[in-house]
Amino acid sequence: MFKKYNVIVVGGGHAGCEAAAVAANLGSSVLLITMNMGTIAQMSCNPAMGGVAKGQIVREIDAMGGYSGIIADKTTIQFRMLNRSKGPAMWSPRTQNDRMRFAEEWRLQLESLPNLDMWQDTVREIVVKNGKATGVMTSLGISIESDAVILTNGTFLNGVIHIGEKKFGGGRTGEKAATGLTEQLIALGFESGRMKTGTPPRIDGRSLDYSRMEEQWGDEERGRFSFTDVPLAAEQRCCWITYTNERVHETLKKGFERSPMFTGRIKGLGPRYCPSIEDKINRFAERDRHQIFVEPEGWKTAEIYVNGFSTSLPEDVQQDALRLIPGFENAKMYRPGYAIEYDYFPPMQLDLTLETHHIKHLFFAGQINGTTGYEEAASQGFIAGINAHQRINDQQELILKRSESYIGVLIDDLVTKGTEEPYRMFTSRAEHRLLLRQDNADARLTPIAHRLGLISDERLERVKRKVESADEIVDYMRKQSVTAADMNPILIQLHSSPITQKTRLFHLLTRPQVSIFDVAQAHAPFAELVNRYDKEIIEQAEIKVKYDSYFEKEMDIVNKMRKMEDQEINPDFDYSSLVSLSKEAREKLVKVKPRTLGQATRISGVSPSDISVLMIHMS
Amino acid sequence: MFKKYNVIVVGGGHAGCEAAAVAANLGSSVLLITMNMGTIAQMSCNPAMGGVAKGQIVREIDAMGGYSGIIADKTTIQFRMLNRSKGPAMWSPRTQNDRMRFAEEWRLQLESLPNLDMWQDTVREIVVKNGKATGVMTSLGISIESDAVILTNGTFLNGVIHIGEKKFGGGRTGEKAATGLTEQLIALGFESGRMKTGTPPRIDGRSLDYSRMEEQWGDEERGRFSFTDVPLAAEQRCCWITYTNERVHETLKKGFERSPMFTGRIKGLGPRYCPSIEDKINRFAERDRHQIFVEPEGWKTAEIYVNGFSTSLPEDVQQDALRLIPGFENAKMYRPGYAIEYDYFPPMQLDLTLETHHIKHLFFAGQINGTTGYEEAASQGFIAGINAHQRINDQQELILKRSESYIGVLIDDLVTKGTEEPYRMFTSRAEHRLLLRQDNADARLTPIAHRLGLISDERLERVKRKVESADEIVDYMRKQSVTAADMNPILIQLHSSPITQKTRLFHLLTRPQVSIFDVAQAHAPFAELVNRYDKEIIEQAEIKVKYDSYFEKEMDIVNKMRKMEDQEINPDFDYSSLVSLSKEAREKLVKVKPRTLGQATRISGVSPSDISVLMIHMS
Repeated sequence: MFKKYNVIVVGGGHAGCEAAAVAANLGSSVLLITMNMGTIAQMSCNPAMGGVAKGQIVREIDAMGGYSGIIADKTTIQFRMLNRSKGPAMWSPRTQNDRMRFAEEWRLQLESLPNLDMWQDTVREIVVKNGKATGVMTSLGISIESDAVILTNGTFLNGVIHIGEKKFGGGRTGEKAATGLTEQLIALGFESGRMKTGTPPRIDGRSLDYSRMEEQWGDEERGRFSFTDVPLAAEQRCCWITYTNERVHETLKKGFERSPMFTGRIKGLGPRYCPSIEDKINRFAERDRHQIFVEPEGWKTAEIYVNGFSTSLPEDVQQDALRLIPGFENAKMYRPGYAIEYDYFPPMQLDLTLETHHIKHLFFAGQINGTTGYEEAASQGFIAGINAHQRINDQQELILKRSESYIGVLIDDLVTKGTEEPYRMFTSRAEHRLLLRQDNADARLTPIAHRLGLISDERLERVKRKVESADEIVDYMRKQSVTAADMNPILIQLHSSPITQKTRLFHLLTRPQVSIFDVAQAHAPFAELVNRYDKEIIEQAEIKVKYDSYFEKEMDIVNKMRKMEDQEINPDFDYSSLVSLSKEAREKLVKVKPRTLGQATRISGVSPSDISVLMIHMS
Repeated sequence: MFKKYNVIVVGGGHAGCEAAAVAANLGSSVLLITMNMGTIAQMSCNPAMGGVAKGQIVREIDAMGGYSGIIADKTTIQFRMLNRSKGPAMWSPRTQNDRMRFAEEWRLQLESLPNLDMWQDTVREIVVKNGKATGVMTSLGISIESDAVILTNGTFLNGVIHIGEKKFGGGRTGEKAATGLTEQLIALGFESGRMKTGTPPRIDGRSLDYSRMEEQWGDEERGRFSFTDVPLAAEQRCCWITYTNERVHETLKKGFERSPMFTGRIKGLGPRYCPSIEDKINRFAERDRHQIFVEPEGWKTAEIYVNGFSTSLPEDVQQDALRLIPGFENAKMYRPGYAIEYDYFPPMQLDLTLETHHIKHLFFAGQINGTTGYEEAASQGFIAGINAHQRINDQQELILKRSESYIGVLIDDLVTKGTEEPYRMFTSRAEHRLLLRQDNADARLTPIAHRLGLISDERLERVKRKVESADEIVDYMRKQSVTAADMNPILIQLHSSPITQKTRLFHLLTRPQVSIFDVAQAHAPFAELVNRYDKEIIEQAEIKVKYDSYFEKEMDIVNKMRKMEDQEINPDFDYSSLVSLSKEAREKLVKVKPRTLGQATRISGVSPSDISVLMIHMS
């Protein structure tokens, strides 16, 4: 009953939405299949987007024409640029969002895309012919043909929810799990594993005493994820911070014997860096308190998300412990926290394009690959969507480099090293993080997306102008100097040592205390130049100057490594012919099928001497 | 882990929301338990409220301080007063609503009520002690105590969804069914039955050709459900009308052999007056077309509800047939139509308060009682919520009379006659429908709700002023006359025969062609009086005059019947002592436990001679 589609996307979460949207925008006819059209783009866990490293990912998606940033901006109830006190490589945008409106805006966005159709159903099976995905079979018994299939099943594959000693099947509470697909994929030769994640209880905010907590407001000058000019909601809401204490921890411990985590009922590994509260007090026994972020779930709702208190302890233990937290003395729960176990597929089974090795034209994105986080999921969906389209049209695939994006780091890590616990992005995972900043995501990635046809000429021009304008300012600063007489009064005010001779503006700006506006104050023509540009461009110029030497060193490293990164390997290369490789290296290389020598170096079990063997063979 | 509540409401649909809200507003501490807090107040079927007889019910709920009208008004995308061309007893307000916003507004409304708590969980069991409900047990194994329990389970009890030859458990598509509760209630002595209902496919509105359909706009002067001054959204959306044809019917018939309706897989009876399209073409074989209302699901969404095309035929048949409807040639489905079978409890097991006969302090409301429709459900929830509160506080119960409300008719019908197919309200079910108009719901019911404490003094005053002002206008018209010289020019213009002598204003207004403004034109002091009042009051006066003789006759009948209706019977009356009763009458009277002689007369199987026996015994 359906026409043949170019791309079928299975699942309507963050990964599925981005995958479907980008493939449609590239010109593929796309069918998004979801179990419930009423729950598209649910924020299953915290009502927030971005944060450290994750905010950079959202900016990268946005720079390439994805929608996560736009949707988040439209539904922001609070914006904060995290790590403002640190260097700009660490600055990370983060929003609190209205949960219901976020889902609604994504749904409306998807509905607005001409090439995108939707269908409510459950996919039971991938149709495979000659080692290639050619469609899906649904639980209604409908067979739908396509050129490619992208799986973004999130936590739904054989999902099991745990609360204390209770467990029940489900993809989220109140929603059904998806069955059948894992079993088929295993039969097709895939390896699968089990992971778990969790979510905290939700509280009736009217039952909290906010006077006992610290207020946390958003940035006064509100930022945004999107490089586009999506209109922002005016109003921001306050969040709060409070802390657990030893009484809370004692109470939680009393529930440990009924914990599915500690009694072995949960087999899957949970996210190390987003641990449950019981994990935290277990692993960090020396800490007498943990921070709790008290986050509203929307502009108007009373519902509160207790960030930092993820738990699968019995609901009575959750409540008893919560009520010992300052401000929570009379807390009423709306929904208990829970843990969920689900199937994932170790991502070394994927190519850097997110296509599976086993089945051609089949792509995986999101939690099915062992990641955690909306941003990680969305970015994988975005890349899978692009590559599905490119693949079926015999167009150039998109593989982002580790030196040009967090998304590149994420995918390279996943497919090269695999993961046995839910993978979350951190700035520390990116060796070139100085270059991968939220402020330059557009400069890094918009041209690439423009080449794919995802970005208008006009938008590309805007990015170019931003870069050129910043460069113009920097160039000017390199060339022009200021006299000691003009500059010193300002330096004295800033408690920066005076200069004794005419000094380049550039040089002055490298001083930590000195801002571009301080320099401009001492140099009228420069002030005039600066005034011609808006804040974003001036900030770019300032970052370029202040971190110039670091960037230069970083680029040196990138360039040195480029040789390895650019040295391509045929993915079908027959490693068995290279007898000098270690056995482990040979096995791993066959499994990962690295695309470049650089990628090969990052495979665990592939030693520098194995790399030498490869290099010799290739030259 | 929970305190003891006064009232626990199970289910968060239209019935559950009204029940929880009104009990909380009366002062009871209330816990609303729902399987998924994300799906509170879902419009499971059509995105609309009101309509013939149903619109009157919404007005009645509103007049008593319920919220259905307010929520509908806030989320109206199109308002129409149906039957404007007929007498005012038939005028019925109806809205198209934004499905997502409707649910959001209800959720926010519930969150705003101080005595109302919410908890996400599934109720497995009613806790019963000494024949009285004292709480619930949930699927998390939590026991929560309460003074009363209201069940509003909708279609979730052992829900089974059918599409063609496929079937799966679920309370709605993508949502779980609720199990266990029916079995417990049967063990407690309840009778249960099986009903079915259905819903049409949802369509991607972008795939429709609206130029091939008739436009249907809302009323230019937009009305409202609520007697309060809730602000209305400015914008209205267009709907469309189209028709099936013989080719559509032929195509549907080809699917009959795979229909769960016709092959006997569905056992439950469906709603006679909201039949599936296959039912319609089967039962009305002589009709060569059926009307289809094409209704948008919200202000912005592309999703379209195909009202009139409810079906559980296989999805390919649904699509093939749809595409033969003018404007639907390229229709793309988002979700297929489906039928759902669920458990209900024949409502003769209930008292007029909606408390069950078997278990004290246990109330049922909504589809569990065998009704269909949001309005029917909401009104039952509202009455059950009131009576649960009143009952546990030993306060006067609320039983609305058939002569004062549609809600009274609904409940009296249900508990007195029972129902074997989904019960839907019609104006024809109300013998006193001339008195039960949407325009006077406030005059009829607001004073009653005020006595309960649900309505502020100020709001009651407003209603009194409305009634008194209309009466003042009517009185004036009874007293004052107009000369032929003044009136005839106007009558001639209206093609109404001229008068030959001074005539009372009242008398002139009883002419069908003449409006109150026509009369005022001829009589300056009356014009002055009329101008002092707003439209609503003038309309009241006009209705009172124009239908005066009908109302008088109707009131005569009501008064004659009042003797029977007011003659109370002790519900625990021992009918076995009345040997002159027929056996059937005795059985039925024991089962229904009528509250009045009037109710007894309406029990099927109780004959006039049985009533005589009762009357003799009682006098």
